[in-house]
Amino acid sequence: MKRRQFLRGGALAALAAPVAAPALADTAPELKWRLTSSFGKSLEVMQGTVQALCKFVAEATDNRFVIQPHLAGELAPGSQALDAVSSGSVECAFTPLAYYAAKDPILVFGSGIPFGLNERQQVAWWQFGGGKDAINGALQRLNVISMPAGVSGTQMGGWFRKELNTVEDLKGLRMRVVGMGGAILQRLGAVTYQMTYVDTLAALENGTLDSAEFVCPHDDERAGFVKFARFNYYPCWWESSGMLHMVVNLDQWNALPKPYQAILARACDAAMTYMRAKYDNLNPPALRKLVAAGAVMKPFPQPVLEACFKATGEHLAEIAGKSIHFKKLLDQVNGYRSDHLAWRQIAEQAYDGFLISATRGKA
Amino acid sequence: MKRRQFLRGGALAALAAPVAAPALADTAPELKWRLTSSFGKSLEVMQGTVQALCKFVAEATDNRFVIQPHLAGELAPGSQALDAVSSGSVECAFTPLAYYAAKDPILVFGSGIPFGLNERQQVAWWQFGGGKDAINGALQRLNVISMPAGVSGTQMGGWFRKELNTVEDLKGLRMRVVGMGGAILQRLGAVTYQMTYVDTLAALENGTLDSAEFVCPHDDERAGFVKFARFNYYPCWWESSGMLHMVVNLDQWNALPKPYQAILARACDAAMTYMRAKYDNLNPPALRKLVAAGAVMKPFPQPVLEACFKATGEHLAEIAGKSIHFKKLLDQVNGYRSDHLAWRQIAEQAYDGFLISATRGKA
Repeated sequence: MKRRQFLRGGALAALAAPVAAPALADTAPELKWRLTSSFGKSLEVMQGTVQALCKFVAEATDNRFVIQPHLAGELAPGSQALDAVSSGSVECAFTPLAYYAAKDPILVFGSGIPFGLNERQQVAWWQFGGGKDAINGALQRLNVISMPAGVSGTQMGGWFRKELNTVEDLKGLRMRVVGMGGAILQRLGAVTYQMTYVDTLAALENGTLDSAEFVCPHDDERAGFVKFARFNYYPCWWESSGMLHMVVNLDQWNALPKPYQAILARACDAAMTYMRAKYDNLNPPALRKLVAAGAVMKPFPQPVLEACFKATGEHLAEIAGKSIHFKKLLDQVNGYRSDHLAWRQIAEQAYDGFLISATRGKA
Repeated sequence: MKRRQFLRGGALAALAAPVAAPALADTAPELKWRLTSSFGKSLEVMQGTVQALCKFVAEATDNRFVIQPHLAGELAPGSQALDAVSSGSVECAFTPLAYYAAKDPILVFGSGIPFGLNERQQVAWWQFGGGKDAINGALQRLNVISMPAGVSGTQMGGWFRKELNTVEDLKGLRMRVVGMGGAILQRLGAVTYQMTYVDTLAALENGTLDSAEFVCPHDDERAGFVKFARFNYYPCWWESSGMLHMVVNLDQWNALPKPYQAILARACDAAMTYMRAKYDNLNPPALRKLVAAGAVMKPFPQPVLEACFKATGEHLAEIAGKSIHFKKLLDQVNGYRSDHLAWRQIAEQAYDGFLISATRGKA
């Protein structure tokens, strides 16, 4: 209705002057946004996901709503992408919410806590299990809204110069670990660092680091970790879903025409599937390359996993002791996980388990 | 550019006559499509997925592109949804491509073959592993194009009145099984039927069926299978990904403005995530309800799975013997599966496996 009135107005205006540039409809204005990513060029799948997301939005709006992606550091440091959006200096960001735990501890649930939900459970929890409301409720105070826009699935536990055989081996181990995984490994005696992957590679090479985690076989192979530390442990219990978010300034979001909000939301949904599928397509051949290059793929020993699981429970309980808000969500997510593992076990786990045994050595 | 020319034309036309109804822009015409679903009301998640998909399209186009969903039977029988789209009598459908194997055997790869890719692998294969081109290449001859628009993950293997202990127990077993699973179970002596779930429930009740598979705990619980057959076996090796497609008449697709094509494609991506998350949210509580109602959840015995795996290989080889086209794709998909299982084993399988053991009995 409004649109038709607008057109009539446009028709009259056209008699007097050339049609103005943004003259289509009030629901389809020309908009240019900037996106700040938490990732640089080295993580090409994350970067490809951001580019796909922006392309999806442009295609759906006939290039009327254009989001220009920027690498980490161009508009804001990777670890402060949300801050830039919160202050309004950039319209949106692609970032892991766990980076911002200092602003509100519950934001780690947006990315996933250690020993938390796997990728499928995390997506279900976000969409239908209360996740969206919990996280966006917390983000409202920061004047932003978020939508999942990427997910990796369970990542790798990192590269070790020596084999890790017992819980004792963690004592004094100098590790590069991101996020809450580091705090938990410290409880078991590890000395953990957060550093860029370039510094990490140098430190592994010169022996000032004993171990480093990065992402998945594809990224790890490209970065060249295997040259300096050949034992590659799994699974990454502190990054079990690897969910990333599109974070949008709330004023900008509210000012968007409803169709643009819908288009952006669906572009994020599609980007999430894109990222997972892209990684799933690249990781298996990368794994083969790594093994050919001398990588030794090893599961963390069961007692090590058990000690980490216990330390995680203690670490989370400590945070919960200081925040009832965090405690409530922790209890809810732990309940969700237990319920969902029962189903996982008789569906995907049973199916994959049989096929892994049936096809072993027959590739 | 075109749009601006159109607006100028519209401006002149407005002097002579009222603005015509579809007068916005050549890229945003008002369109009404009909969708025929292969599913009825009993499968509320599938139906909800179709409704979400149509809502996504309407929201993104400010209700200018409206797709009206219809249940199976309203416009076309559920098993002939693709035919209705192919002939052009309906613009689009939501349907499993495996239903149309008689038109081209490779269409079963669209849904997933028995002992085929799991949901994650299937999505990666579709998007980046050659799946999209292979299937849409085959569908072009039927004048349709398809996009994945739903996925369930591994389903349940069905309800049995008696325990299934050996491969011998399959001999003479009267089973309701859909799709290629039936043909394979016949090789092992089962007598299989395809029938509606209403007929299936009646046949289980009066004892003319020994076993019946349906979908997942949520649908199975609502249908009430547990009342007539309490042994619920897993996993459903013949429906391991449960991928469903949006099928669009190719002439209609080609006539769509590019932004509408993009909007529809992203709505399908989003619907796929929606359906999986919806099922993942509903299945765990349904599983608990089933167990409380007396269901006994049992894995198929390893020798039964092995016999079924072998029979599947023979069945697929027989089809491959008659079609080089099918053989090529079968070899490609089997290679993809092997490669991806190696990665699956050290990522999700290892992670979920540890958590299942660590949280057992602690729910």
